[in-house]
Amino acid sequence: MAVIYKRVALIGLGLIASSMALAMRAGGLAGEITGHAKSAETRDVALEIGLCDRVFATAAEAVEGADLVVLAVPVGAMGALAREIGPHLAPGATVTDVGSVKQAVIDAVAPHLPPGVAFVPGHPLAGTEYSGPRSGFATLFRNRWCLLTPTESSPPDAVARLRALWEAMGSNVDEMDAAHHDLVLAVVSHTPHLIAYTMVGVADHLAQVSNSEVIKYSASGFRDFTRIAASDPTMWRDVFLTNRDATLDVLGRFTEELFALQRAIRLGDGDHLHAYFTRTRAIRRGIIEAGQDTAAPDFGRGADAKGPAAARAG
Amino acid sequence: MAVIYKRVALIGLGLIASSMALAMRAGGLAGEITGHAKSAETRDVALEIGLCDRVFATAAEAVEGADLVVLAVPVGAMGALAREIGPHLAPGATVTDVGSVKQAVIDAVAPHLPPGVAFVPGHPLAGTEYSGPRSGFATLFRNRWCLLTPTESSPPDAVARLRALWEAMGSNVDEMDAAHHDLVLAVVSHTPHLIAYTMVGVADHLAQVSNSEVIKYSASGFRDFTRIAASDPTMWRDVFLTNRDATLDVLGRFTEELFALQRAIRLGDGDHLHAYFTRTRAIRRGIIEAGQDTAAPDFGRGADAKGPAAARAG
Repeated sequence: MAVIYKRVALIGLGLIASSMALAMRAGGLAGEITGHAKSAETRDVALEIGLCDRVFATAAEAVEGADLVVLAVPVGAMGALAREIGPHLAPGATVTDVGSVKQAVIDAVAPHLPPGVAFVPGHPLAGTEYSGPRSGFATLFRNRWCLLTPTESSPPDAVARLRALWEAMGSNVDEMDAAHHDLVLAVVSHTPHLIAYTMVGVADHLAQVSNSEVIKYSASGFRDFTRIAASDPTMWRDVFLTNRDATLDVLGRFTEELFALQRAIRLGDGDHLHAYFTRTRAIRRGIIEAGQDTAAPDFGRGADAKGPAAARAG
Repeated sequence: MAVIYKRVALIGLGLIASSMALAMRAGGLAGEITGHAKSAETRDVALEIGLCDRVFATAAEAVEGADLVVLAVPVGAMGALAREIGPHLAPGATVTDVGSVKQAVIDAVAPHLPPGVAFVPGHPLAGTEYSGPRSGFATLFRNRWCLLTPTESSPPDAVARLRALWEAMGSNVDEMDAAHHDLVLAVVSHTPHLIAYTMVGVADHLAQVSNSEVIKYSASGFRDFTRIAASDPTMWRDVFLTNRDATLDVLGRFTEELFALQRAIRLGDGDHLHAYFTRTRAIRRGIIEAGQDTAAPDFGRGADAKGPAAARAG
């Protein structure tokens, strides 16, 4: 594939940025990759495993001469970062980000960018429960969606070029406005994460059931929650603080529905429960048909179990 | 391995019973396997794929002469089933079940069993989101826990023999009393399932976000909920109706914690959120160390993605 950007600066070198680096390397999509992370250890790792050609102790140095700058830090850190790098951005450069919330990032970043620099906010819907520069892999974005939320001042050619990069890294790309993005993500991601964190927290507090029991018997549903609840705490704190209104809206609806089911349990209304549980099955089928998950039972853990037991033995 | 029971009768031929049949076949643990399911189609499948040596149109016929009878029907159907088979059970036989709730099963089943028949309630903590006679596989129970909840009148030798069967099928076996079982399961299984069902239902109702958006973008956390929420509606209806008190208790605690986090979001209390999210990570590590899940990112879906994309393409 052809080089899409001559010099890409990755600011923040966690799961997303390191996966982007590896995907760009694999596809020959970037002439040079520079990077910055606050931690010297992270910068050393990034050089050692070849994520970046050069790393810098400051973001301002890392963005010098870059034609694409990727802000891959927690959402709450975007504003200060934009203020720092604003004066150092090359004319004609594109700035994008990978934050899970879009309106708050636009509000925090846009005011600090000089004229002649394009801003195209983005959000790859991909991730794992791991973080840090060693957690990335080149195929993280393959067949996953990347949502771009251009503003009124995003130049169409800058949007098209960034879209080409994400597509070359394997993503499907959609565009939508920031407010709609934030509501959609509140439903498919932010609220589910908060709920998973809560359930894991409840289990941790319950005096009559020991932690070791929770851990031993987790296969019965609970372990899927723990995977979600193991995600990076700083990233998720910022998500909830910055997508507050949409999350609280969806949470309100969630509580309402939960209370209706709770009432059905209390009253012994089996028909209500059965009808509800039947409806939710259809959504799962849709997700499998859309290729967003495997149809293998138990995410393929069952298939694993048919092989040598070593990987799962306690 | 040696035969542990000469004739095993499986009543209900869904995921658990069909996996037991295959596991017993693989280990040579049962001399003969008979079966009953209400649906003639299910009985035909059970013969066709070799789950059972003989199938019967009634449970009463299927249990004749069996030294182990496994009740593998929804919890709400256990009482009527026990009443039907009671007079047909062979003296010295053991009756067990695989229901997800134990006190309600004991209350429903025990009164119908004649003297000289042992009752040893059980619950294998294994399953997938699929159901029916074709969904079983021989290694479903491998490295999974099976909880036995003997009553005061369960003969120790009958408990030991049933334990040997589960261990031979690959399970780790623990014993506990029924009330404690029901509370533990309310935490690790029942409440998480109800929550997952609720979240999937909320997404289905939300007018501003289309179902196709939910499905396309589900990889961001939501799809783990949909797997849980795709489980058998009848089974789960009965679980909530029969483990009502423990589920309502845990739900109450869940709502309390959720409201505390919701309040932190509303007030912008990032420290509270960060501390909470940090604590829940430790539980995930414990689960991986205990061998109850894979440490592979995203349950190994990431590893999948490194292979041919065919399986995941939309």
